[in-house]
Amino acid sequence: MTTVGILGASGYAGAELLRLLARHPQLQVAWASGESSVGQAVAERYPGLAAAFPSLAFCSQDEGLDKGADVLFTALPHGRSATLADRMAAAAGLVVDLAADFRLHDPAAWTAWYGGAHPAPGQLGAWPYGLPELHRDQLPGARRVAVPGCYPTAALLALAPLLRAGLVEPGGIVIDAKSGVSGAGRSPADPSLFSQADENVSPYAAGSHRHTPEIEQELASIAGRPVAVTFVPHLVPMTRGILATCYARLAGGATSEDSRACYQAAYEPEPFVDVLAPGRWPRTRAVATTNRVHVAAVTDRRTGRAVAAAAIDNLVKGAAGQAVQCANLALGLVETAGLDLVPPGP
Amino acid sequence: MTTVGILGASGYAGAELLRLLARHPQLQVAWASGESSVGQAVAERYPGLAAAFPSLAFCSQDEGLDKGADVLFTALPHGRSATLADRMAAAAGLVVDLAADFRLHDPAAWTAWYGGAHPAPGQLGAWPYGLPELHRDQLPGARRVAVPGCYPTAALLALAPLLRAGLVEPGGIVIDAKSGVSGAGRSPADPSLFSQADENVSPYAAGSHRHTPEIEQELASIAGRPVAVTFVPHLVPMTRGILATCYARLAGGATSEDSRACYQAAYEPEPFVDVLAPGRWPRTRAVATTNRVHVAAVTDRRTGRAVAAAAIDNLVKGAAGQAVQCANLALGLVETAGLDLVPPGP
Amino acid sequence: MTTVGILGASGYAGAELLRLLARHPQLQVAWASGESSVGQAVAERYPGLAAAFPSLAFCSQDEGLDKGADVLFTALPHGRSATLADRMAAAAGLVVDLAADFRLHDPAAWTAWYGGAHPAPGQLGAWPYGLPELHRDQLPGARRVAVPGCYPTAALLALAPLLRAGLVEPGGIVIDAKSGVSGAGRSPADPSLFSQADENVSPYAAGSHRHTPEIEQELASIAGRPVAVTFVPHLVPMTRGILATCYARLAGGATSEDSRACYQAAYEPEPFVDVLAPGRWPRTRAVATTNRVHVAAVTDRRTGRAVAAAAIDNLVKGAAGQAVQCANLALGLVETAGLDLVPPGP
Amino acid sequence: MTTVGILGASGYAGAELLRLLARHPQLQVAWASGESSVGQAVAERYPGLAAAFPSLAFCSQDEGLDKGADVLFTALPHGRSATLADRMAAAAGLVVDLAADFRLHDPAAWTAWYGGAHPAPGQLGAWPYGLPELHRDQLPGARRVAVPGCYPTAALLALAPLLRAGLVEPGGIVIDAKSGVSGAGRSPADPSLFSQADENVSPYAAGSHRHTPEIEQELASIAGRPVAVTFVPHLVPMTRGILATCYARLAGGATSEDSRACYQAAYEPEPFVDVLAPGRWPRTRAVATTNRVHVAAVTDRRTGRAVAAAAIDNLVKGAAGQAVQCANLALGLVETAGLDLVPPGP
Repeated sequence: MTTVGILGASGYAGAELLRLLARHPQLQVAWASGESSVGQAVAERYPGLAAAFPSLAFCSQDEGLDKGADVLFTALPHGRSATLADRMAAAAGLVVDLAADFRLHDPAAWTAWYGGAHPAPGQLGAWPYGLPELHRDQLPGARRVAVPGCYPTAALLALAPLLRAGLVEPGGIVIDAKSGVSGAGRSPADPSLFSQADENVSPYAAGSHRHTPEIEQELASIAGRPVAVTFVPHLVPMTRGILATCYARLAGGATSEDSRACYQAAYEPEPFVDVLAPGRWPRTRAVATTNRVHVAAVTDRRTGRAVAAAAIDNLVKGAAGQAVQCANLALGLVETAGLDLVPPGP
Repeated sequence: MTTVGILGASGYAGAELLRLLARHPQLQVAWASGESSVGQAVAERYPGLAAAFPSLAFCSQDEGLDKGADVLFTALPHGRSATLADRMAAAAGLVVDLAADFRLHDPAAWTAWYGGAHPAPGQLGAWPYGLPELHRDQLPGARRVAVPGCYPTAALLALAPLLRAGLVEPGGIVIDAKSGVSGAGRSPADPSLFSQADENVSPYAAGSHRHTPEIEQELASIAGRPVAVTFVPHLVPMTRGILATCYARLAGGATSEDSRACYQAAYEPEPFVDVLAPGRWPRTRAVATTNRVHVAAVTDRRTGRAVAAAAIDNLVKGAAGQAVQCANLALGLVETAGLDLVPPGP
Repeated sequence: MTTVGILGASGYAGAELLRLLARHPQLQVAWASGESSVGQAVAERYPGLAAAFPSLAFCSQDEGLDKGADVLFTALPHGRSATLADRMAAAAGLVVDLAADFRLHDPAAWTAWYGGAHPAPGQLGAWPYGLPELHRDQLPGARRVAVPGCYPTAALLALAPLLRAGLVEPGGIVIDAKSGVSGAGRSPADPSLFSQADENVSPYAAGSHRHTPEIEQELASIAGRPVAVTFVPHLVPMTRGILATCYARLAGGATSEDSRACYQAAYEPEPFVDVLAPGRWPRTRAVATTNRVHVAAVTDRRTGRAVAAAAIDNLVKGAAGQAVQCANLALGLVETAGLDLVPPGP
Repeated sequence: MTTVGILGASGYAGAELLRLLARHPQLQVAWASGESSVGQAVAERYPGLAAAFPSLAFCSQDEGLDKGADVLFTALPHGRSATLADRMAAAAGLVVDLAADFRLHDPAAWTAWYGGAHPAPGQLGAWPYGLPELHRDQLPGARRVAVPGCYPTAALLALAPLLRAGLVEPGGIVIDAKSGVSGAGRSPADPSLFSQADENVSPYAAGSHRHTPEIEQELASIAGRPVAVTFVPHLVPMTRGILATCYARLAGGATSEDSRACYQAAYEPEPFVDVLAPGRWPRTRAVATTNRVHVAAVTDRRTGRAVAAAAIDNLVKGAAGQAVQCANLALGLVETAGLDLVPPGP
């Protein structure tokens, strides 16, 4: 078995890693750190994990890094893993980082959106951006992977094929995303309270969300020129799921059939992406708790615009599941190992 | 007292009319019809209305129309009131229609979006479009009013001031709207089931929703030329509320402060519209169960685009409350009569 | 106008007092304190209150007590008002306390359930227990009132008439209560997070909840002998509402009709209590945002047991609304002043 | 591979069978019938099942029965499978019925609770009651199994060990159960609508629910004498999950530690039941989408009563999962085959 250590396992993305790895045929959790939960049983903090991890307790970050493992997953708050880069590389042959620290390739973009100088600017660009559907070739044998943010995962999977095929223009793209509350993590905070989030929909960080430069970096790479998108996330009253509804100007006379054919060509070899039948739209419930992606698009000649939507589970394909998928590819395992999940019907 | 009859009172918009009229100082419900509930006590179908209407039962449509009333509110399925126009006019001095039948002024638009020929094309254009914030001058003394749809109410209140002031361009507008499930009414249907709608977000009728031509009609009237918008509604897991997030190209160098000043000038005299403080976004919960509207906008020079959002309660400002507001204005009553509601905190 | 001060207005019960008092014809809020929110605009913390209180900001507790008011409502954490009793009495002619501090009459019960010695034992028993349906005669002219807990309000309104009429026995009573999450207040805490409470039902504090002695005190007073109840509260995924399902042994051969007649006799004069028609059960939604109570009971000869249920809104009849009702009675106002609320249909 | 046919697969329990069987190592779905969905793709009705069953469509009942299979699961409405008993026996070597038709052993109980004469009274008692934790010995080699109802599964797993060990008395048991809305199935019905069920808790069928005689049959079998329980189910606003909170009189001086030790002894060999640590209560979320059961109990000397609670997923351990568990045992497979599921953290 290949051993796994998890840094920052007490939050939702970390717990989701534990859930997925519990059933992974090759990867086995050796330790899981949680700074605010050191010594606490995993089963106490996540009673649903009791049967899978009856005796695992959270260790400290230092304890974990000292032990090391074949694979290290890090689900620490943004900015933390950049300061640990060398230590992580020493501790494990493969480091898969779920934070934002190594996603951007341009230090100036980091400074503009995250503030301050990047702690390890020399490493920027050296970590593959772990969206296998876009960068599959960079992953086999990789020793470090930067897992994309949840919103970029959904937005890019909806937009990338259409942009690459020239069906839509890179200018004037609007991304209106809707996320469940688990995206805000388990730290108690007023907007995450049930009585604040329930029966409520609201935008936040309109035009200023830190996932914007990731999306722009990847779209620019496809378009071959700078791209600026209008990205507005919204909080909706559900626990899991992201729906990204994307609006782009049609580049030519593309039809809805063209956009669907474009998706089918792009995603036919992809094990986790489903192109929906004509007339169907992605529903977050249909991908909940799984690593799957549902996409659909239509074109509207009347307004000269394409509407493209993707649904994912923010904690799986938007975080832990994508991390496992990347690890599988990096290690040469079957891409779907541990990820053959079927969502609940209702 | 002024007497009121309600056609189609057994659905959610009708029940909401009953709730609001129960506390109206001048309007008094004389009868309420419900074709599928004739003879049933209102209190049995809506237990919460038991204290306000202990002895009212649903009558038939014919019975109601024969009785008549000073004011007639109609909350029938679309297409029904157009066939009853003459009978309604005979039955009441003021008819306030919550359906789509008389909202569009152009018979061709009706045919294009609703199908078939309009049953009373001669009346199109003769019913004021009952959005008081846009057409206040047409309402006093009116004998018939077409109450706008829920989505157009939210979208137009977000967009109209910016477009009128020339801050945004009429071309390329995108409206991404999110609605609670009560918008689909009380008729049992698969997508409205708790176990289907819970923990789920999904677009529907993208680019083809029937509220589109209403929005375009009103924006065109402001712009002085045809306007085509991309409008995509979404279903979110909550009972009430609509949030319309609108995206438009900046016409000049407008700042966020300009857009806020524009809203303040437009809405300063409006009793139901609140322009939020800088940095705050509309939340549907903050207007729930009331006739209030929360609006906010920012401009993004980076992308040359304005983001404008409005939150309303779909059953109040989006239906029954706006109908009462229109009736108040038509009858010369205080505009806020019966509508001085304070939303629950949590 | 009669002036009102509120101590502890930044929490949910306090905000609900503000909501109700905004529309009260005789009571007018002069100030509202919130220790953790001093200086913050009420409208910023509760955007829905913006229209009703455009310029009110939270003051400090000392500032409020120094100003004084005709009526003082206190919604402080348990144990706080007992230490302020003299200061509150000096500051206002009527003090209505929403905390537990003066509900119990027996200092030993306080010590057993809350721990430590009561700070003002001499006052215990001197504050009427403000459940008007049980202690209506003690309220007119009262200068201080202890408002019952939310669970006791629901449980006692379901059980008291049946016990007083001798239809059920005082021994072996079981109370299984279900509460919305707002009962836990607005302080960020893990179990109150959306992602923890959503799609989840769980008991808590089974047999040890501090509302138990209140229920037992009042039932014992009716039964004329000590009563011990099994009380288990549950958290359910909704914001507002309490349903108390109560199980008691039948004392004789009472039928469901007898229990309904008993309720009707008890509650006929009560302006806020509705006895449901046979075959209907209380639903929290039907009383949401109002001061109303829905009750129903059946008897089961097969098992020799009565099942009695009551639904209330935990923040209204279970807290702020009941406080206003008590103040109305103490001041000689119309009992329903400011409380004529109609719940939303859906 | 062992082939499987499913009768009534278009409802929630049937879809859940499909979800579980998609990952079962030995059982393979050959066909799935759905009378109201004949010809429809499974993936169209349940988009989440698209990846697992890309080409399966619902067939008719006759078509399925004519084909036959090694194992037949039936998830038809109550009363239907009793009329098909012979045909089912001819079509498959093992029939696992999820309906109520063969759960009761006494024809008189059937008549009393379901009405009318049982269509196949001779078979009553011949179908093992498929709760493996109680009737493990009857399952190996069985050719037909009656899967318990969702409420009885939860209630019996909470009560059976305590009653068998003599810790509680069989008289005066109260079962207060809370269920998610999926228990009502996917047929559109008013109480199942999102806008009716959301933010609402209510009892239903108090004292008259058809799961009562199942519970009494099994408890009587343990107690060795007739048992009558007071059973009141409630609908709570979530999709999945049942929590049964059970109240029973202590038979002796049992402590909370005794009750926990009793559970541990009973459930130590059980692969799906977890006895929670002292101070923890079952949460439906912690077992969601899995076949697991969480149980806990405390005793209260003050009131002479035990409080015992169990949480299950109503569609898995309360229906489809238990059916697969029974099939595994009947066929001599590993009991947990296809059921090693880990619940989502948040």
